[in-house]
Amino acid sequence: MSKKLRIIPLGGLGEIGKNMTVLEYGRNMIVVDCGVMFPESDMYGIDLVLPQFDYVVQNQDRLHGLVLTHGHMDHIGGLPYLLRQVKTSIYGTELTIGMVRRKLEEDKVLQQAQLRVVGDDGAFQLGPFKISFFPVAHSIPGSVGLVIDTPAGAVVHTGDYKLDETPAGGRTTDLERVRRLTPNGVLALLADSTNADRPGRTPTEKVVAAELDRLFAEATQGRIIIATFASLLARLQEIMLLAQKHGRKVALTGRSLEENVALARDMGYLKIPQGLLVEIGARVPDKQLLILATGVQGEPRSALNRMAQGEHRQLQVKRGDTIIISGGVIPGNEEEVGRMLNKLFERGANVIYGKLATVHVSGHGSRDEMRAVLEAVRPKYFIPVHGETRHLHLHARLAENAGVAAENVYILNNGAAWATDGQKAWLDKPVPAADVFVDGRLIGEIGVRVMQDRRQLSQDGFIVALIPVNANNKLAGEPEIISRGFVHPHNSADLMQAARQEIKRQFKRGKKGVAKESVAEGRLAEGHFAEVLQNFFYRETHSRPVVLPSIIQV
Amino acid sequence: MSKKLRIIPLGGLGEIGKNMTVLEYGRNMIVVDCGVMFPESDMYGIDLVLPQFDYVVQNQDRLHGLVLTHGHMDHIGGLPYLLRQVKTSIYGTELTIGMVRRKLEEDKVLQQAQLRVVGDDGAFQLGPFKISFFPVAHSIPGSVGLVIDTPAGAVVHTGDYKLDETPAGGRTTDLERVRRLTPNGVLALLADSTNADRPGRTPTEKVVAAELDRLFAEATQGRIIIATFASLLARLQEIMLLAQKHGRKVALTGRSLEENVALARDMGYLKIPQGLLVEIGARVPDKQLLILATGVQGEPRSALNRMAQGEHRQLQVKRGDTIIISGGVIPGNEEEVGRMLNKLFERGANVIYGKLATVHVSGHGSRDEMRAVLEAVRPKYFIPVHGETRHLHLHARLAENAGVAAENVYILNNGAAWATDGQKAWLDKPVPAADVFVDGRLIGEIGVRVMQDRRQLSQDGFIVALIPVNANNKLAGEPEIISRGFVHPHNSADLMQAARQEIKRQFKRGKKGVAKESVAEGRLAEGHFAEVLQNFFYRETHSRPVVLPSIIQV
Repeated sequence: MSKKLRIIPLGGLGEIGKNMTVLEYGRNMIVVDCGVMFPESDMYGIDLVLPQFDYVVQNQDRLHGLVLTHGHMDHIGGLPYLLRQVKTSIYGTELTIGMVRRKLEEDKVLQQAQLRVVGDDGAFQLGPFKISFFPVAHSIPGSVGLVIDTPAGAVVHTGDYKLDETPAGGRTTDLERVRRLTPNGVLALLADSTNADRPGRTPTEKVVAAELDRLFAEATQGRIIIATFASLLARLQEIMLLAQKHGRKVALTGRSLEENVALARDMGYLKIPQGLLVEIGARVPDKQLLILATGVQGEPRSALNRMAQGEHRQLQVKRGDTIIISGGVIPGNEEEVGRMLNKLFERGANVIYGKLATVHVSGHGSRDEMRAVLEAVRPKYFIPVHGETRHLHLHARLAENAGVAAENVYILNNGAAWATDGQKAWLDKPVPAADVFVDGRLIGEIGVRVMQDRRQLSQDGFIVALIPVNANNKLAGEPEIISRGFVHPHNSADLMQAARQEIKRQFKRGKKGVAKESVAEGRLAEGHFAEVLQNFFYRETHSRPVVLPSIIQV
Repeated sequence: MSKKLRIIPLGGLGEIGKNMTVLEYGRNMIVVDCGVMFPESDMYGIDLVLPQFDYVVQNQDRLHGLVLTHGHMDHIGGLPYLLRQVKTSIYGTELTIGMVRRKLEEDKVLQQAQLRVVGDDGAFQLGPFKISFFPVAHSIPGSVGLVIDTPAGAVVHTGDYKLDETPAGGRTTDLERVRRLTPNGVLALLADSTNADRPGRTPTEKVVAAELDRLFAEATQGRIIIATFASLLARLQEIMLLAQKHGRKVALTGRSLEENVALARDMGYLKIPQGLLVEIGARVPDKQLLILATGVQGEPRSALNRMAQGEHRQLQVKRGDTIIISGGVIPGNEEEVGRMLNKLFERGANVIYGKLATVHVSGHGSRDEMRAVLEAVRPKYFIPVHGETRHLHLHARLAENAGVAAENVYILNNGAAWATDGQKAWLDKPVPAADVFVDGRLIGEIGVRVMQDRRQLSQDGFIVALIPVNANNKLAGEPEIISRGFVHPHNSADLMQAARQEIKRQFKRGKKGVAKESVAEGRLAEGHFAEVLQNFFYRETHSRPVVLPSIIQV
């Protein structure tokens, strides 16, 4: 059998986040992107989620390099973790590599990587793979899609894109280049599905600039505070130019914002007029000051949320301030953002958010743009990527409507090994690709069981019952009950007294209850008490705390 | 001093939910609405939130009656709890009272209330208060606003409303009646603020019917499954007529839906064509069947979510099914709804939700409608109600723009006692109006402290360390560590062993450590170990589990 091309997504399918895809031809491997995902609300106590990249670690002798589409965390955030176990070359555009370098330095793994800057329409060879970049419009500069020539045929990976004709920064998505790069057609298209449930086209970034211009003109008295994503560098550029136009100085607050602005300025991605930037504490009249802050998602430690809480060291929100939230809320963050907005209003600010004005547009294309890409690329096979299951399905149907044969559309799960010889396609045995949870310093040690325990603890707390017994298995003292998160001790003296009585009653029952179980069967007796106490507390309160009896030999 | 009118919101301000407002004139009291709130995601383990109605309970000798604006749970859901402590008369329109009767019967408190049905434009006297209903368009039939004549002047309470000119069911908001009822002007307006952050007008319900008609025409092969709110009776009526038009029978699944349809049908609010309804298991060809289901919010036990999970007893979702989500997602539920949608797509259904089609519109008016009400009523004082803090502030500013004097606009908190003599207004001492948490059978026993514990437990779990000591305060055996939700025991043998060593080390240190603390100071020693172990675990894992050491005398 001839060699085959395999495409194995390790993350980013069935989820928005931790994008990572393996491509193999014969024994040659490359990887596209290596992102993290921010935890969903039922991932209790988790800081970050990584793709499971064991397959890459175990086969690193076959790895020719890692290719990055752009510098967002869901595409590069996993690198410091991967590089602890893998040494490799990393390819990306100048800004992307700049952001990666800073991140790897911070995490002290820079020596593990050889960083290679590639131009926006550069090309390079990794084993049998010829990779050509093409520029795409997205919410961070230096974003590219990939045309990957393989012996089996050409693969196109869109990266994150929109077909904005008037984007901030002027970088449009170059589908014409894709056509030129694929004179023999496209074997497989992997395309961004994020907005597959949004009809029409995503509005152009230009409407944001126009709306901000209008709002700046209206806010003639007080300060303007704009919260936006630190990586929306092209929008930051627009805002700075508008600030200058309206006679305002600009101050920055929030570490990621300060760092990104410094980096982008150094690399020439951000042109800041002389004298525009001032220190956050600088004495500037309110009506001549614009503050750029982090905190669009209401993150607890972000600059804007600290202002909302009254905990920002240099800034107090006050009557007359106009606060503009220039960013979309990620599903799951609505309540936190809502609480932050409430507090900002309470402090007297006028807050412009949500539907009140078009001060944010998505960086991802909507359905009409997806259709345009499908019609431009005309792939034989189509694999929707970068989306939750519903987005992948909607994108798949769109592809069928746009002319891809239904049997050539593959909705994959993470770990699926899609294989092709250029003529036909099939699925090989999948590779492991679970969620890897990061909790503090613990990486991959928190599993589903612990998550279930945390869930139960969050609902009804726990009860630990200490039951002292003597050598004859008789109760040898008063049982003690330790509890947290169930009912406040203040309100529960009677209830806990009754629980102790319930334990004693078990001993009085004698043979039928506990005493027949020998010391060697201590665990069994604990199981018995767990059941008795669970029933007792459910009967009394209709709650189900975690119950852990401990029999103590005294 | 002459008698004064007081308006005291006990719930619904700074939140969407548990609406309840006290009106007093001299010693005379009435209450408008008595709702519940569904918990926010940081209210761990809470089933429901009630308004704190102690003030009403303590002053029930002065209570003339309770007036209801409509039958939604955030306006009537608190009644069974209030009626355990208060006996009173309850006034509402026919459907509202019908829903209340059923609820009070279920909760066995019907004998506490005298239920009084009032017509859509009926009026009645409660002490010095003359209450006149006026019909409003909202997402449940029988909704009214109130004109309350008091000796100090007229108060208008909008209830929940929109100014839909072509609503399902044909019931428009009768502002003309409000004008006629208030020939001497309006002293104070209390108005719904829910959509104060939505510009323009809320689309009419008519667009939903038109869109459903179109979707029904397209779905010619498989079943149609529509998830909607059980209380959206006018929309249910439209759907049933459309089903008949398109030659489909209708089956219902979900208890609240079945109950509401039966009740509304009995009361004449729902006209169901002969033979249209079939049992859920009935043999009807797929293309002639429409299923109405509960589950718009992705609630775990709802009919649609059970279908998504494959746990519905009579229904399996399959390829060819068209599923329409005809309801808005309440902020905080996005992730649960998203997961449900993903599973429905996985089962092969075509799901229409969100922006894919206009299959839901809000039941609350948007900014232009709020402005229209303000301009029609022209109140001297304005109190925005029914909204989170941001909505109240935005509504307040809108009122100022619409001509209410800024000093006459009051943004109140729950419990605030707004007082007026008809000439001027001021704030009296507030009354208690906290959140009252319902958790299983526990009502009001779960406080902020328990909630904090649950939060911490949800993040990092807990550690209980059992430390056996003898009469001389020497370690008298191996310390034992019990833990849940921290790290799985499987992965943590070394860590727990090190923790036990840490405990032993404390004893070895002798005088400086634990031994100096006498048995009588056991609690102090436990505090010492808590600190030692907290530091130990943070150092090792960067996590902060709840740590509870227990010193055991053996």
